[in-house]
Amino acid sequence: VGDFFVTILGSNSAVPSRGRYPSAQLLECDEASILIDCGEGTQMRMMDYQLKRGKIDTILISHLHGDHFFGLPGLLTSYILMGRTLPLRIYGPKGLGDVLEATLDFSRIPRNFEMDLVEIEGQEEQVLFERGALKVTAFPLQHRIPTFGFKIEDQRRKMRLLREKIEEYHCSVEEIQGLLKGEDLLRGVTVLPNAMFTEGERKGRSYAYCSDTLFDKSIAEYVREVSCLYHESTFLEDMIDQASARYHSTAGQAARIAQLAQAGSLLLGHYSNRYGQLEAFRKEASIVFEPVYLSASGKKFTIGSEGIVKEEILEKIRF
Amino acid sequence: VGDFFVTILGSNSAVPSRGRYPSAQLLECDEASILIDCGEGTQMRMMDYQLKRGKIDTILISHLHGDHFFGLPGLLTSYILMGRTLPLRIYGPKGLGDVLEATLDFSRIPRNFEMDLVEIEGQEEQVLFERGALKVTAFPLQHRIPTFGFKIEDQRRKMRLLREKIEEYHCSVEEIQGLLKGEDLLRGVTVLPNAMFTEGERKGRSYAYCSDTLFDKSIAEYVREVSCLYHESTFLEDMIDQASARYHSTAGQAARIAQLAQAGSLLLGHYSNRYGQLEAFRKEASIVFEPVYLSASGKKFTIGSEGIVKEEILEKIRF
Repeated sequence: VGDFFVTILGSNSAVPSRGRYPSAQLLECDEASILIDCGEGTQMRMMDYQLKRGKIDTILISHLHGDHFFGLPGLLTSYILMGRTLPLRIYGPKGLGDVLEATLDFSRIPRNFEMDLVEIEGQEEQVLFERGALKVTAFPLQHRIPTFGFKIEDQRRKMRLLREKIEEYHCSVEEIQGLLKGEDLLRGVTVLPNAMFTEGERKGRSYAYCSDTLFDKSIAEYVREVSCLYHESTFLEDMIDQASARYHSTAGQAARIAQLAQAGSLLLGHYSNRYGQLEAFRKEASIVFEPVYLSASGKKFTIGSEGIVKEEILEKIRF
Repeated sequence: VGDFFVTILGSNSAVPSRGRYPSAQLLECDEASILIDCGEGTQMRMMDYQLKRGKIDTILISHLHGDHFFGLPGLLTSYILMGRTLPLRIYGPKGLGDVLEATLDFSRIPRNFEMDLVEIEGQEEQVLFERGALKVTAFPLQHRIPTFGFKIEDQRRKMRLLREKIEEYHCSVEEIQGLLKGEDLLRGVTVLPNAMFTEGERKGRSYAYCSDTLFDKSIAEYVREVSCLYHESTFLEDMIDQASARYHSTAGQAARIAQLAQAGSLLLGHYSNRYGQLEAFRKEASIVFEPVYLSASGKKFTIGSEGIVKEEILEKIRF
């Protein structure tokens, strides 16, 4: 049922070091090309891996700490100078508009593309947009400043309709589309379960991004049964007090959220600079939950409905 | 007489591509470590070449187009998070303070170092600061928005005092220091030329940075006899009309300024993306002036009083 890839551009916490860069991820699927966070140098990382920055149609910014958005003014300036025409929608916390205005105003270069900036507010889960089978949701995280997690769902499922049942109940085109999205069938007041009419995958593919956040069990509700959960793990358990004090999580806590949510796979990231080797993050999380993957710049993950099904390392162009 | 190095971190014009990055240079000398412009990713470039970002004590920003300052908020955030204590002085055009306030306000992290931001205004040449024998000057360039060139001079000269003359005129310590800076000696109303008392280099070492600017002969006055002139060359002569329309210069025009100023060496940069190979820039400029050098990320130039005396290519760390 088409593409559903996440490519990691940066997965380090605040200060870049050791070739580890600030947060940015690219989610590519049939309906959209979504950039999630945009730390400094994101457009250069895309150059490094020959990913086309011009294809991105949606940008999601989790919060206004620099390591999650300082690459945005540069990316937008490049779009303007490259003569982009594709419309762009940006979602981010209240205040993002002011920041962009302050940084981009000085260029005063007219642009040829429509750019909508939608500022997210509030403490409720909210649908940002739906496009075909794609649904993108924001939900609150617990950090020092207003911060949002994101869930991206491709609601299509690899499933087969049971023809004899479809015919028996004279299903309409709309009803068939609903069945393919996993909906049940209504006949009067009677609910006929989806499973009567279909066989195959129980759910679509989905990806959730939770960074930065304090360990908070309520996050598990927002990301229930997600195919792949990216949850920040700035620290290991030996620094659990530090993690709380700074509104961050440990690898063990990230795994606990994955376990509570019954996620398909867990992807860790946003590592503190204090850690040179990252294998300890996987080890710590694996005690609580499996499978665990480590994000790193240039890793591309293919996501299936039940979790990560492929991990690749993209070749870095050596200039 | 100590170090005087310029290391190129980025030398491309607005849109980064082909491993060419936006403007940033590091000038290292005995008295200071000066970052000139700070395009997006400057701190990552410093990581790539193992240059210590913490040693920089002065930052000069030429103008408020993104490719010259979008790396500054990230660098300052890193300084804050790394617990920097060394004071920092930043010079840049009016408006830089507002931009930094808008981008950094959201972090609300207290910092442990003194940071002075000096906004430059006006159309006159002005001394930004002097420290020992070091003198840093700003002068106006001609671009779409207020833009400043910078001249950094180490006024010390590799010279020998002529002992018999010093003794004959009973020179004081202050007078000897003046002679070593190239000053003449006063006896009453009589000016005794420096050359009577010294032999060796006629002048100190100096570096001038002119980017971005329209071709403007008056720039030659500000950079007269500079040891090394960095002058932008966004285009080649075949695009001379484009260059004027966009307030940029050609390689040939940069060479003309170097010739008028009687510079020691010319260093080109700020190349437009339209050019894949850069050798044509050197060729074009060399018709008018020699020697010509091409800037590129990771090139380190040692500057002597009469021009560039050494060109090295720093090893890039492969992470």
